[in-house]
Amino acid sequence: MKMLRFRKDGRVQWGWLMGEDHVTPMRKLDGEPAGEVYPIRELEVLPPAEPSKIVCVGRNYADHIKEMGHDFGEDLPAEPGLFLKAPNTLVPSGAEVAYPDWTEELHYEGELAAVIGQTARNVSEEEALGFVLGYTNALDLTARDKQKSDLQWIRAKSADGFLPLGPVLETELDPNATAVRTWVNDELRQEASTERMIFPVARVISYVSRFMTLEPGDVVLTGTPSGVGPLARGDRVRVEVEGVGRALEVTIV
Amino acid sequence: MKMLRFRKDGRVQWGWLMGEDHVTPMRKLDGEPAGEVYPIRELEVLPPAEPSKIVCVGRNYADHIKEMGHDFGEDLPAEPGLFLKAPNTLVPSGAEVAYPDWTEELHYEGELAAVIGQTARNVSEEEALGFVLGYTNALDLTARDKQKSDLQWIRAKSADGFLPLGPVLETELDPNATAVRTWVNDELRQEASTERMIFPVARVISYVSRFMTLEPGDVVLTGTPSGVGPLARGDRVRVEVEGVGRALEVTIV
Repeated sequence: MKMLRFRKDGRVQWGWLMGEDHVTPMRKLDGEPAGEVYPIRELEVLPPAEPSKIVCVGRNYADHIKEMGHDFGEDLPAEPGLFLKAPNTLVPSGAEVAYPDWTEELHYEGELAAVIGQTARNVSEEEALGFVLGYTNALDLTARDKQKSDLQWIRAKSADGFLPLGPVLETELDPNATAVRTWVNDELRQEASTERMIFPVARVISYVSRFMTLEPGDVVLTGTPSGVGPLARGDRVRVEVEGVGRALEVTIV
Repeated sequence: MKMLRFRKDGRVQWGWLMGEDHVTPMRKLDGEPAGEVYPIRELEVLPPAEPSKIVCVGRNYADHIKEMGHDFGEDLPAEPGLFLKAPNTLVPSGAEVAYPDWTEELHYEGELAAVIGQTARNVSEEEALGFVLGYTNALDLTARDKQKSDLQWIRAKSADGFLPLGPVLETELDPNATAVRTWVNDELRQEASTERMIFPVARVISYVSRFMTLEPGDVVLTGTPSGVGPLARGDRVRVEVEGVGRALEVTIV
């Protein structure tokens, strides 16, 4: 099932996607349809999460670790390397994202995102996926030059607009057996099976929950495959996690 | 004037501190008193902020930079080095903070915190302090060992309970001419004038606002002076920014 968050007549609501292009609002999050049906074109679709925090895995596909110049050889990291993105980064699919004037190296990183549905503290890997509301497409925009020069990855990862997310949450996805693909101007640039993750989604959530309580609405970004690269003004970026069913698309302006 | 956030009869409200130990709720944040007066002992005092993000300066006092082994010599950093803390870190004055079992080096860092009152995007240094609602005491708890070993400072800085904040917001403080002091078990460990900051509060807010929109409730931590050090279970930590008028106190358990 696909759910989405939208604004209609000034009011923010959640709804279920019905067929290709209709939405029915929910009585409560993840609950029954309320009865009304809206054509999706009449709605302003919002990022499908209202996180208190966005926790990201920095290095979760061996090929990407290699392309970034960190060759662990046989010694892959023993624990997920994490970073945060702040909620000011969130923009919906369809957004125009401004290329900041303080970076010369804005990079795309397509990813699978998990949105948390219930408070998760100290959860085991076995039970972790039960705390997920759904999965969606994420574009982890990164100012690569500032990632290298700054003390921590704040400007590099948390500038306004640096996390296009959505448009829908798929509640039924198996996050361990899907594929992440990123296109720039319709050219395929990243493609990997999530089976290639060093730390599967459940292990990441369990690990994080041991020291940070995850709250409903929190977002977990699961890392990007190899193939990252620079963007230019005018580029159209598309991220599609197989099974989410709707692509995330933004334009860099 | 001193404001605080509290829970009474299950309802979270803001109020003005009246004299030593009474509180009158506000009609709206930073607004007129509503009329009632409560003894403070009847209230559950909460951290005086509900941030969407907590932006921190990593190195803002030259003496602390030196003690951390980063000797810039004459070349102090040209821009503030930033990191984030996530909102799950927030606990009120009076809290018991659990020493996590995954660190062997929990450190105190006493700081001046500014809480944002109005949306700030691309604000100049001259106007920046006008976007501040008030100032308070902060204890930036840090797992020093994980700060060194992990990819970014997430476990090191954003574990549950790692940001005791409060108890009151002082709206009239001059952040450039005050002092920050930290005691452990009544022994003074940190003491510095905020005049010693490399980047004054206004410059930090202006810098951040150029790439991250600051929202009402967001917290800016302004860096710690020299004198940081390890904590043990049972330690009582007290942080007092001169002029805030009420100390922040927590116990490590």
